[in-house]
Amino acid sequence: MNDYSIKELSEMGAFECSFEVEVTEQMQKAFAEISGDQNPLHISLEFAKSKGFEEPLVFGMLTASFYSRLVGVYMPGLHSLFHELKASFIKPVYVGDKLTVSGRLEEVQAEYCRVVVKAAIHNQRGEKVSKATITAGVTR
Amino acid sequence: MNDYSIKELSEMGAFECSFEVEVTEQMQKAFAEISGDQNPLHISLEFAKSKGFEEPLVFGMLTASFYSRLVGVYMPGLHSLFHELKASFIKPVYVGDKLTVSGRLEEVQAEYCRVVVKAAIHNQRGEKVSKATITAGVTR
Repeated sequence: MNDYSIKELSEMGAFECSFEVEVTEQMQKAFAEISGDQNPLHISLEFAKSKGFEEPLVFGMLTASFYSRLVGVYMPGLHSLFHELKASFIKPVYVGDKLTVSGRLEEVQAEYCRVVVKAAIHNQRGEKVSKATITAGVTR
Repeated sequence: MNDYSIKELSEMGAFECSFEVEVTEQMQKAFAEISGDQNPLHISLEFAKSKGFEEPLVFGMLTASFYSRLVGVYMPGLHSLFHELKASFIKPVYVGDKLTVSGRLEEVQAEYCRVVVKAAIHNQRGEKVSKATITAGVTR
């Protein structure tokens, strides 16, 4: 886990990082349970097909949960406090997709002890499935 | 589950709804598992206290998962497709907090088959812990 301070971040210049994650059936079920979102688009093959998709869609907000890991583990890591997120969902994500979550340190607002991270998620075919701008506090 | 069509939404005028949910330890653990966010701010009492919080913080993105339910079950419900979210986390949420998630239909863009929902989450003391603007497609 990275543990950058706001001072280190403000002196570090370009900073990018990424990690990979495979979306599993178990994640999808656990997310439905947590969120209480029982929309059949994420559960029923028949319903998903009736809406023009190949398979049930992974919840957008499950995909977005990986932004929490990006900020909390990598950028800035240990001393982060999630403030704000703007996320778009651009292409369908299906169970079994292998996603690459990447972030770039866009701005360090040292006086406000916060950073702005530009993030994106691509699937195994290199298609961008989501993008986000995240503001996080840095508490050290 | 609501199943409004874009036509019904565009004719309905004011539309608000809300639901309640209690955040449990199990949700918190399942979310850490799904997201891979192992930041101790959400796990360790000692670390959370060192950062000035009473207890480990509920993940912001776990709180935001309830926006998925708001859109997928209530507003617009069955025929929704999550497009975009802008969410802020304003006050700490702790395990055991009883949250009220509320939404107001802000805009119906009938030609684009999408709606804009203004949403907020309050805790049991009436404090606003998060707010969001959500854009969702309506597929019927």
